[in-house]
Amino acid sequence: MEISRWILPIFIMGCVFNFGQNESAAQAPATNHNLMPVPAVSRFNSGRLAVTPSFTIAVKGYSDARLLGAIDRMARRLEARTGLTFARGLRGDAAASTLVIQSQTPGKAIPAVDEDESYSLEVSNSQATLNAPTVVGALRGLETFLQLLSGDKEGYYIPAASIQDRPRFPWRGLMIDVGRHWQPMEVIKRNLDGMAAVKLNVLHLHLTEDQGFRIESKKYPKLHQLGSDGNYYTQDEMREIIEYARMRGIRVVPEFDMPGHTTSWFVSHPELASGPGPYQIERRWGIFGPVMDPTNEQLYKLLDGFIGEMAAIFPDAYLHIGGDEVEAKEWKESPRIQAFIQARGLKDNHGLQAYFNQRLSKILTKHGKKMIGWDEILHPDLPKDIVVQSWRGQKSLAEAAKKGYAGILSNGYYLDLIEPTWRHYLNDPIPENTTLTPEEQKLILGGEATMWSEWVSPETIDSRIWPRTAAIAERFWSPREVRDVGDMYRRLAVVSVQLEDAGLLHKKNPPAMLRRWAGGAALGAEVKPLVAIVEPVKGYRRGSLQKATQFTPLTRLADIAQPDSEQARNFAKDVDQYLYSPPSPNQTGQDTVSGALGRWKQLAAAMNRDIFPSNQPPPAAPPRPKDDQTVDVDMRAAIRSPLMNEEAAPLAKDMEDVSDIGLEAHGFLQSNKLPTEEWLNAKLARLIGAAKPKAAVELMIVQPVMELVIAAAEQEKRKTMSAEEWKKHVKSMAAKKMKQ
Amino acid sequence: MEISRWILPIFIMGCVFNFGQNESAAQAPATNHNLMPVPAVSRFNSGRLAVTPSFTIAVKGYSDARLLGAIDRMARRLEARTGLTFARGLRGDAAASTLVIQSQTPGKAIPAVDEDESYSLEVSNSQATLNAPTVVGALRGLETFLQLLSGDKEGYYIPAASIQDRPRFPWRGLMIDVGRHWQPMEVIKRNLDGMAAVKLNVLHLHLTEDQGFRIESKKYPKLHQLGSDGNYYTQDEMREIIEYARMRGIRVVPEFDMPGHTTSWFVSHPELASGPGPYQIERRWGIFGPVMDPTNEQLYKLLDGFIGEMAAIFPDAYLHIGGDEVEAKEWKESPRIQAFIQARGLKDNHGLQAYFNQRLSKILTKHGKKMIGWDEILHPDLPKDIVVQSWRGQKSLAEAAKKGYAGILSNGYYLDLIEPTWRHYLNDPIPENTTLTPEEQKLILGGEATMWSEWVSPETIDSRIWPRTAAIAERFWSPREVRDVGDMYRRLAVVSVQLEDAGLLHKKNPPAMLRRWAGGAALGAEVKPLVAIVEPVKGYRRGSLQKATQFTPLTRLADIAQPDSEQARNFAKDVDQYLYSPPSPNQTGQDTVSGALGRWKQLAAAMNRDIFPSNQPPPAAPPRPKDDQTVDVDMRAAIRSPLMNEEAAPLAKDMEDVSDIGLEAHGFLQSNKLPTEEWLNAKLARLIGAAKPKAAVELMIVQPVMELVIAAAEQEKRKTMSAEEWKKHVKSMAAKKMKQ
Repeated sequence: MEISRWILPIFIMGCVFNFGQNESAAQAPATNHNLMPVPAVSRFNSGRLAVTPSFTIAVKGYSDARLLGAIDRMARRLEARTGLTFARGLRGDAAASTLVIQSQTPGKAIPAVDEDESYSLEVSNSQATLNAPTVVGALRGLETFLQLLSGDKEGYYIPAASIQDRPRFPWRGLMIDVGRHWQPMEVIKRNLDGMAAVKLNVLHLHLTEDQGFRIESKKYPKLHQLGSDGNYYTQDEMREIIEYARMRGIRVVPEFDMPGHTTSWFVSHPELASGPGPYQIERRWGIFGPVMDPTNEQLYKLLDGFIGEMAAIFPDAYLHIGGDEVEAKEWKESPRIQAFIQARGLKDNHGLQAYFNQRLSKILTKHGKKMIGWDEILHPDLPKDIVVQSWRGQKSLAEAAKKGYAGILSNGYYLDLIEPTWRHYLNDPIPENTTLTPEEQKLILGGEATMWSEWVSPETIDSRIWPRTAAIAERFWSPREVRDVGDMYRRLAVVSVQLEDAGLLHKKNPPAMLRRWAGGAALGAEVKPLVAIVEPVKGYRRGSLQKATQFTPLTRLADIAQPDSEQARNFAKDVDQYLYSPPSPNQTGQDTVSGALGRWKQLAAAMNRDIFPSNQPPPAAPPRPKDDQTVDVDMRAAIRSPLMNEEAAPLAKDMEDVSDIGLEAHGFLQSNKLPTEEWLNAKLARLIGAAKPKAAVELMIVQPVMELVIAAAEQEKRKTMSAEEWKKHVKSMAAKKMKQ
Repeated sequence: MEISRWILPIFIMGCVFNFGQNESAAQAPATNHNLMPVPAVSRFNSGRLAVTPSFTIAVKGYSDARLLGAIDRMARRLEARTGLTFARGLRGDAAASTLVIQSQTPGKAIPAVDEDESYSLEVSNSQATLNAPTVVGALRGLETFLQLLSGDKEGYYIPAASIQDRPRFPWRGLMIDVGRHWQPMEVIKRNLDGMAAVKLNVLHLHLTEDQGFRIESKKYPKLHQLGSDGNYYTQDEMREIIEYARMRGIRVVPEFDMPGHTTSWFVSHPELASGPGPYQIERRWGIFGPVMDPTNEQLYKLLDGFIGEMAAIFPDAYLHIGGDEVEAKEWKESPRIQAFIQARGLKDNHGLQAYFNQRLSKILTKHGKKMIGWDEILHPDLPKDIVVQSWRGQKSLAEAAKKGYAGILSNGYYLDLIEPTWRHYLNDPIPENTTLTPEEQKLILGGEATMWSEWVSPETIDSRIWPRTAAIAERFWSPREVRDVGDMYRRLAVVSVQLEDAGLLHKKNPPAMLRRWAGGAALGAEVKPLVAIVEPVKGYRRGSLQKATQFTPLTRLADIAQPDSEQARNFAKDVDQYLYSPPSPNQTGQDTVSGALGRWKQLAAAMNRDIFPSNQPPPAAPPRPKDDQTVDVDMRAAIRSPLMNEEAAPLAKDMEDVSDIGLEAHGFLQSNKLPTEEWLNAKLARLIGAAKPKAAVELMIVQPVMELVIAAAEQEKRKTMSAEEWKKHVKSMAAKKMKQ
């Protein structure tokens, strides 16, 4: 599923909507609430429902363990946030209850793609009423209710509102690759809680890979015994996951990637492979040669048995067969297989894969499952009820739809590429300019965020998935028109803390990793300002910068650094406003820009003086000013972490120099003075050096500072250009330099 | 087990030892390493064993799954900390390996109190050799090896050393009360990992309480079904815990508290109680009336069955029968029971409990278990192989020893009292001035830290147990002479980060709780400086300040605040140095004192201006200075958390005023000017107000500021007093004021 560096076609950062106090969300992204995803229709009224210790809940209509479990979880989280203690249990008298929940039916016995997830929520001064046709709809509404909690001097309350909500797409998923890096039960469970909080409804588990076979087979126990290093889900554990998901209205779709990505199968069953073997669990990352032998009848016998066994465990209607990235090397090298292709008139290796998929399709049908697979499976011979999961993009998806195939989009939602949230957020399964007919559009079922796990451990996975996936969840649930990036980021900050509340570790783990990497809490605090403005390198670049296998500890700076640095993003925004907002320079932007640069320079200078010996100037420096953050750092402490010293020292030097260059450029701009050519060349060279990744992270303030420098040097041109031209001019020059 | 406010008899903060570079730890607390607990004998040499990617491990002699498991965990943690990837598996060629481990025997089949835990570790430039008579000794040595990891410009290394180590006491425990607040599997497991890291060897689980019956009984299933709200360990889960502990060389001692603290038994079995019933699970905290009926033969029949069942699950030689705090109310009110006492000539209710214990003792003997219980069980009729766990103190323990009973100390190790670490650390099971003979001293087996759980949830329990328990573990393991408090705190800061590494959440959870309580990350960061200098109220005071039941959410300021505030402790030390170090005032102390006060004043003023509306002065304040920690805080955000507003606003006002008063007092001292009486009275009154707990926390900087104020007012007297007298004078006046 490797995507060559993914680029968003259009970045609609600038699009602005009219926000009305009492308008429905379908026309206006909300700025008057913190809900994520934004409901289909919402109207906020004056008035409020107080949340006090006498808060009570009643259930009318249909009720079951799933509904009661969700109510209990919601009430406990409401208590934790408010510090209030509510009476336990439900209240008999609905009329006198604070919240009344009424669902008409249990919904599908097995969570399904055509589940009705709609609900309506009416909040008045005296009561909140949640109505839903199904329990699953009620579950979605309970998450909305919890997100509505507000407070002021009078105390906690739910604002009076009228919400009618339903999802835009029925398939809203998160794929977790547990093959490459094993993810134990608790990782899956807490991510299911996070998914429920933002109304995602499909957990897609990528269960088999070259690097691991992660599910117990009782029929062919050597598959997991020899293919997993002991790291697999027992069938009981998998049932536990499925039930945990069902309780939250989430489907579990298992993927058994075939016929490629199957090295781990061949450790115990080399006879299924196209090559001679023997095979060992793959420890490296990449696309590998081992591939199933579609000419071997034994293969279909085993798959029939195995899929029959899995079909009994996974109740979902769909079973994912992968089908991606088949390396035909072993096929090409086998005269027997080539003869088979010729004898059957299969044309080529792709024809052979299609043959395999047809055989597989029959096995799936036999066991009552529909097929889903990656783009490559698409072939006219397959039945029309298959679903294509597109890693290639909207175009590929639309082509499938035009042929009558349903599909979901994953291109643009690859979490492992470390893209900023806004890119995923603006990526739409059905873009505005779609050429699909309304009927064809119905075949686009939704999408899935994908968490490929070459570079994620149980310790880091949450911070790669969250909070970015909350914005993707909004893309899948909310009306297409909801796409104000600034408003998304504002709400995301609120929801991120709530996701932590739900059990996720995306905010807790990075500081702990920083402490370990730095060799202590005091040193960690000292280097934190640097870590806050670096991001892991994007795309697949890390693999070329750092050698790694499945055994490599993911405890380095590139693992601690977070995607989408908030500080760097805000700084870039401030620089934009300072440089490009007419008339210019903007005074507010000016203060913020020089303020941030000044702070970074001071902090970096302190790091370089105190903890990175190699960055210290020869003569003794004056005593460092004390501030609340820093603790007395023993100079010897610097050598407590050779790892931090190796990774961070060059970056701290860059941080100090880049901040300093930014301040100087800012000075030229403020005084309307041109820098000398000598200055310009020296500083550009320094910035180009600082733009190069180090320790597989990027210093995110380099590009805005590059713009400051270029703007300072080119400031004469500003007078001759429109604001738009000027912005384009500076940005394109800066981008060119950044690539040098 | 409620102890009336525990006071350490002697605080030996001042005692100083001679630290020698090459002396054994028995004579000198170490300042040249970060080991905790300090080994019995250690000698550090010049030289180092490099830790590089070619690090390898070999095992000579006896080997088993327990040893291999511990080696693997150690190697993975070493990789995580260094970022290095080692070859997996053991090396065949011991001579060429970096670390060679040789244990002679597996140790006891069942972890036992007389296990040999000794080991020796020799580190040269070329190799480290760990030798131990048992695998358990090797496990202890592996933890030491990991703690030895050091680094410098050349990279990671283990310093050359010669360590011969063995514990001072054989019983080094942690008790967790899972009855009052349920603690799920993962809490127990991660705490076992923490225990192993600091060489504790007994997990004592307090499994039954008035508020919960936490273990599955297959013979009497209604016990856990009706007594636990569904929160109990299944027998399989308990076996999993026991095996997890055994793998780490830790015993699991179960406690079934009888005959009091038994309300939860009576929900299903009211016939066992002395009163008429019916009974419900107790939700409040305190000591309650329900008590078993020792006159009822049915009771012994059930206990025989139940203890037989438990004896088959828990392999440890000891079974804890509680026996504490028996309220005799139900006994007194029962004519039948009083008649029984008279008929048997039992003297009184204590005689009745002794009768019960004798019956119980026979049941334990029948099932092959020795009895352990709290002080109250001590009675001449019980066999000599019982162990007394003393919550009453060293005196009670010594008296038992003189009667020939073995005992362990828990008084002074009550973690729920929120005492500072140094108090627990200096509390010794056998104090220097003991009157016990060497033979009697052997009966003091060690001690246990106790985590009673009225005020701890799974979210907060780690930060109540850790890192303080690491210092207690040192008390139990290391020679008595190791008691330099400053050195303990220095090493504790290092070990605390390593404990986090081992899986504990004591550093991760409080910031997350702060974010939830504050209603967001930005507000949390803003109020963090206040939270860092408050501590939960000590002893049992919280119960009188905040009403709570088992259902109360533990998500308030008193749950977020940590024991033993590092910043407040350091400030108090600086004030001490400033005020009392001859000749005085000390210049270093002076800078630090005014620096800290100035920072706190500024930070508190910002909080009061920006987020606590009730603390804002009428006219608009000037814009707040930006710093790296704070994010732009929307004024409306302040009302996002009514809970924080209610709890923190008064404290933020106190923090600003107290800092300001401290600065003024400091000014008087610096200029040798006397404050007016009017000033003095006003400021003392303000400080007395600030010394009162609010939101069940104490502002820890009040007392040192009180000393500054008194010193300013009394500074004339300093000239007439010795340094010692002056210190005593100021401190006693301050202490008196603090109590007003």
